[in-house]
Amino acid sequence: MLGSIIYSNPTKLYFGENSIDFLKEELANYGDNVLLIYGGGSIKKSGLYDQVVSILKASGKEIFEDAGVMPNPTVDKLKEGCLRAKEGNVDFILAVGGGSVCDYAKAVSVSAHCDEDPWEKYFLRMEDVDNKIIPVGCILTMVGTGSEMNGGAVITNHETKLKIGHVFGENVFPKFSILDPVYTYTLPQYQMVAGFFDIMSHILEQYFSGEDDNTSDYIMEGLLKSLIHSAKIAVKNPTDYEARSNIMWTATWALNTLVAKGKTCDWMVHMIGQSVGAYTDATHGMTLSAISILYYKWIMPYGLKKFERYAINVWNVNPEGKTSLNIAQEGLERMEAFMQEIGVVLSIKELGVTEEMIDGIVAGCPIFNGGYKVLDGEDIKEILLESMK
Amino acid sequence: MLGSIIYSNPTKLYFGENSIDFLKEELANYGDNVLLIYGGGSIKKSGLYDQVVSILKASGKEIFEDAGVMPNPTVDKLKEGCLRAKEGNVDFILAVGGGSVCDYAKAVSVSAHCDEDPWEKYFLRMEDVDNKIIPVGCILTMVGTGSEMNGGAVITNHETKLKIGHVFGENVFPKFSILDPVYTYTLPQYQMVAGFFDIMSHILEQYFSGEDDNTSDYIMEGLLKSLIHSAKIAVKNPTDYEARSNIMWTATWALNTLVAKGKTCDWMVHMIGQSVGAYTDATHGMTLSAISILYYKWIMPYGLKKFERYAINVWNVNPEGKTSLNIAQEGLERMEAFMQEIGVVLSIKELGVTEEMIDGIVAGCPIFNGGYKVLDGEDIKEILLESMK
Repeated sequence: MLGSIIYSNPTKLYFGENSIDFLKEELANYGDNVLLIYGGGSIKKSGLYDQVVSILKASGKEIFEDAGVMPNPTVDKLKEGCLRAKEGNVDFILAVGGGSVCDYAKAVSVSAHCDEDPWEKYFLRMEDVDNKIIPVGCILTMVGTGSEMNGGAVITNHETKLKIGHVFGENVFPKFSILDPVYTYTLPQYQMVAGFFDIMSHILEQYFSGEDDNTSDYIMEGLLKSLIHSAKIAVKNPTDYEARSNIMWTATWALNTLVAKGKTCDWMVHMIGQSVGAYTDATHGMTLSAISILYYKWIMPYGLKKFERYAINVWNVNPEGKTSLNIAQEGLERMEAFMQEIGVVLSIKELGVTEEMIDGIVAGCPIFNGGYKVLDGEDIKEILLESMK
Repeated sequence: MLGSIIYSNPTKLYFGENSIDFLKEELANYGDNVLLIYGGGSIKKSGLYDQVVSILKASGKEIFEDAGVMPNPTVDKLKEGCLRAKEGNVDFILAVGGGSVCDYAKAVSVSAHCDEDPWEKYFLRMEDVDNKIIPVGCILTMVGTGSEMNGGAVITNHETKLKIGHVFGENVFPKFSILDPVYTYTLPQYQMVAGFFDIMSHILEQYFSGEDDNTSDYIMEGLLKSLIHSAKIAVKNPTDYEARSNIMWTATWALNTLVAKGKTCDWMVHMIGQSVGAYTDATHGMTLSAISILYYKWIMPYGLKKFERYAINVWNVNPEGKTSLNIAQEGLERMEAFMQEIGVVLSIKELGVTEEMIDGIVAGCPIFNGGYKVLDGEDIKEILLESMK
């Protein structure tokens, strides 16, 4: 049932080739001191860095830089970002990069003016934001996380081996996001397909939840079919604009709160994957792909009807003359074949997980309700051990 | 192709049973003089009127009333509404009713402070709004038009037999909309199913357009399947909360600009239907249903591939051993059977159209590009004559 919904998504999207042309217009809405946040050198290589800096200068902005945001942004980096934001007395944060950069920018935006330790307040204790928030705008260079149109931010603490995501409210959503599919062309294949699976995982984690089906399930089936269709094209031809643009648009709508309406979601694939990530620093999407098939096989008996529907509506399994179980299994087989086709990782061993890490990964994995089966530590351990084979 | 997109939808939705509890909180954001706009006596019978008035009073508002908004709001009524808005020096407009009431409220919101004749400026000449806009909030009592989360407003001029819709920008979108599926229970069956078909038509007019398919098409297939599933339940049991809530949510997302992204749309079913409406004052959704099957048969040869996809993905037509044409035709047959099942009108004769009106209806029907076939007056006349049989 859809139940009670409050929907409001204030992020303005500029999507399509050359959508950076709208940046100057947007910048006019904010103060002069801008913190430019980005990751490694890829935006310098591609020329995007120079382009952004020249637009910022032409807009009369004072630029403060915070570079070197890593794929799994750390607590230490967050503290560094907060310092820069305060030193520069920044009025606005411009994030240029993928989901990690956008996530990190939102974390800085809520943490810079926080009087306490932001890791403890906003990640360990998950409190609401009650201090000044620095507005954020994003220029997205890779897709997957949906961070460009939601309030999510994931931060990793290497010391305590914890990777925690906080989904902040609409006051933390990016004010605008610039989505140019062409920017995503230069991403290495490994990161590209990891992003594709991240999108898929976002949809599936919401789809396989809730007591009954509603409009959100139908929309998600549409998003999944669009993603599968275009991902197959993009792995063969990464510069296929149509495929890359459909994937970029799908990624945004997969995790911008819309399809979550009426769904419960325990996000256990993300919880387990994030704990794997805290131990290995592996690419986020690959930590999800490595456990997904095993996880879904594990919970299938508790939500068989939905897995049957998934097989028929998303994977076009012909149900004639088959049992529900057979249909559902065939759906997961087709999903696995698709994952092999696009080339995502199917085992955590491949990500560098060792037997010795398993207990720690289990211990670092928070457990939530909302899925078809509430997992316990033993379940998680079994899934992880299966993925070591 | 998705192409260039600017997406921003500022309307906040409060959805679900008792979502009116949020009204007081929202009213606090606006000034004291409120114009309460509604239609006939149904909200008085249902008790909603008393509830709204008591919340307005408890919020310290001065209430100005503009009642009697008709199903096809007229130019004369619009002038009356503008007068009331100006007399009351209103700060805010609260619309309580269906799509016509919401449409009309938006028309008043842009017209009240217009120095020229608003019908000429905003409907005949379709100009952008350059005067003060009075903010609008909506409490929806019937579904179909999507008016609760878009900038659309349709006004009818009986004198000149013109019914024209202007899609205004995001500054005219309702600031908030309250969507309680329970309010829709009391609607007579005829109006209820007309609304269902209006939703279907909104999706189909966007779906059957554009040069290629993209994520929007996949989302629309999901919305269509959700609508068909729930409409069949709702016609048998209008108080099935789950069905009515899914339909209400689907209606909003069918026409709030999302699924239009990357589509062209000539809106010809609406254009013809609106012209029929200007001559007969028939229920909007029924003017669409009366011509839809004939219209789609007419354009099918020009977009055969999409009609084939529609048949397979939406109507579960088994394509095996059939030609594209057969598959496409079977899809439209299933659609017609569905329309008969829910009980919508399939002939304009039933709506009171006479042979003498045909030429006038054709003349009053604007023709746009963007569909699979650009119609001419002769095409429209043929479709109308077919629907007289």
